[in-house]
Amino acid sequence: MEGKYSIYKRRMNYYETDQMGIIHHSNYIRLFEEARLDMMEKEGISYANIEELGIIIPVISVECHYLVPLYYNDSIEVYSQLKKFDGIKMELSYEIYKEGSTGACTRGNTGHCFLGKDMKPFRMKKLYPSLYNKFKEMVINMQ
Amino acid sequence: MEGKYSIYKRRMNYYETDQMGIIHHSNYIRLFEEARLDMMEKEGISYANIEELGIIIPVISVECHYLVPLYYNDSIEVYSQLKKFDGIKMELSYEIYKEGSTGACTRGNTGHCFLGKDMKPFRMKKLYPSLYNKFKEMVINMQ
Amino acid sequence: MEGKYSIYKRRMNYYETDQMGIIHHSNYIRLFEEARLDMMEKEGISYANIEELGIIIPVISVECHYLVPLYYNDSIEVYSQLKKFDGIKMELSYEIYKEGSTGACTRGNTGHCFLGKDMKPFRMKKLYPSLYNKFKEMVINMQ
Amino acid sequence: MEGKYSIYKRRMNYYETDQMGIIHHSNYIRLFEEARLDMMEKEGISYANIEELGIIIPVISVECHYLVPLYYNDSIEVYSQLKKFDGIKMELSYEIYKEGSTGACTRGNTGHCFLGKDMKPFRMKKLYPSLYNKFKEMVINMQ
Repeated sequence: MEGKYSIYKRRMNYYETDQMGIIHHSNYIRLFEEARLDMMEKEGISYANIEELGIIIPVISVECHYLVPLYYNDSIEVYSQLKKFDGIKMELSYEIYKEGSTGACTRGNTGHCFLGKDMKPFRMKKLYPSLYNKFKEMVINMQ
Repeated sequence: MEGKYSIYKRRMNYYETDQMGIIHHSNYIRLFEEARLDMMEKEGISYANIEELGIIIPVISVECHYLVPLYYNDSIEVYSQLKKFDGIKMELSYEIYKEGSTGACTRGNTGHCFLGKDMKPFRMKKLYPSLYNKFKEMVINMQ
Repeated sequence: MEGKYSIYKRRMNYYETDQMGIIHHSNYIRLFEEARLDMMEKEGISYANIEELGIIIPVISVECHYLVPLYYNDSIEVYSQLKKFDGIKMELSYEIYKEGSTGACTRGNTGHCFLGKDMKPFRMKKLYPSLYNKFKEMVINMQ
Repeated sequence: MEGKYSIYKRRMNYYETDQMGIIHHSNYIRLFEEARLDMMEKEGISYANIEELGIIIPVISVECHYLVPLYYNDSIEVYSQLKKFDGIKMELSYEIYKEGSTGACTRGNTGHCFLGKDMKPFRMKKLYPSLYNKFKEMVINMQ
């Protein structure tokens, strides 16, 4: 992954496997979420605080390519990168690596929008300028 | 299961298996929830409506005995029964049967309390007498 | 969705929601799996039997676009369509509709490969011609 | 929790919440599994290795009491303790604490049996004496 990125680590759980003996593909989407929220927190943006402001950041698209399967107890690293942000929408990229391996096992993207509690978009730049600036900084730093 | 009970049917999903090749034990707790909410709906109590009133019914205890494992694609029936209800708490029992088999595969119980949105208990008998009466009828019918 | 497709119906479960009050986005990937395996079964291809032959069909890619959120207890229909199949790989498309609504809430695709128990590809056309022909018929029927 | 116990730490994930705004009760059963396997690993018993020997340790009972709800992003500690072990079955106890809080949020137990790949019990003491001794030591140490 080029540019700056955030790294999130954990082990894969037994209950994440299926009867093929590998991690079920739906769980990678959850891993992306863990990595995304961890990245935001490390960059000084607490998602819990955002929701307290009445803002939610639903997922509007997901894409995932499974290159090499993950297994129970694998130690993995998820690299996350904020690719685009304009105050209305944002896009992130992810790569998952097994500890000690050089090639990515998984590559993915998620798209998001920012909504108020009424499920409607709003002008973050105007209403929450400091939050807007934090995201803006993050996207610039990660180029 | 003695007395009257409600029956909820479905098939077990692939993503509910784990690498032992059987349904992961945590998913039975979710099955109990499905059966419980289905039973309430069949008895004229919509959980969606209850939450609109500002009432939640969190789980305060769970018990489950796994007698025979379930597999992917098994057609199962969950028998549910309201055992106790006093307007403050309730208790339910469950049994899971594989289609065409006579013995229960799983037996379980859940305990619940009724809370307002402030996470505090309230007097259902006084504040929501018609809801109270529906639960009361259900528990009497199921003896 | 143009062409022929298979329809899979169910209600959304309470445990599939998250604290945004909507169905968590990862669960749609599981819904696609349910719909895909249901479609195969309706077309005379039992996934349980396929695994008994020593064949697995892992997911190699997933794409999902979330247009309108789903809520607890929504009755939904998943339309599934086999788009491509050549004995080595296959591609499917999905659309999710809420009962009584005309526009799709969700659109998605999954890509799969066929592997032996050694996690290696094999010649389905040669080794399992009747299975190959069933998939081939399905993809032709669904154009 | 009296006696010796193992401590497993992590944060609660967003996808583990439900629309009540709290961690869904089924996920605590998964937390117990994480803590149990982590404890075994710390005590020198790798579950991955055990399965390679052809041994599985299915759950035969679960009990959980939910005292205080957990929320998204809570840092928690799971205390685990092996209570009984005789080579045929074992029993564990768990307590979950929020970081910085003194009272347990959750208390639970799980019961397990040891089976061969044929889903039948076997004499661990005779067939796998070193594994038997590791478990035996663990249960004695944790009194």
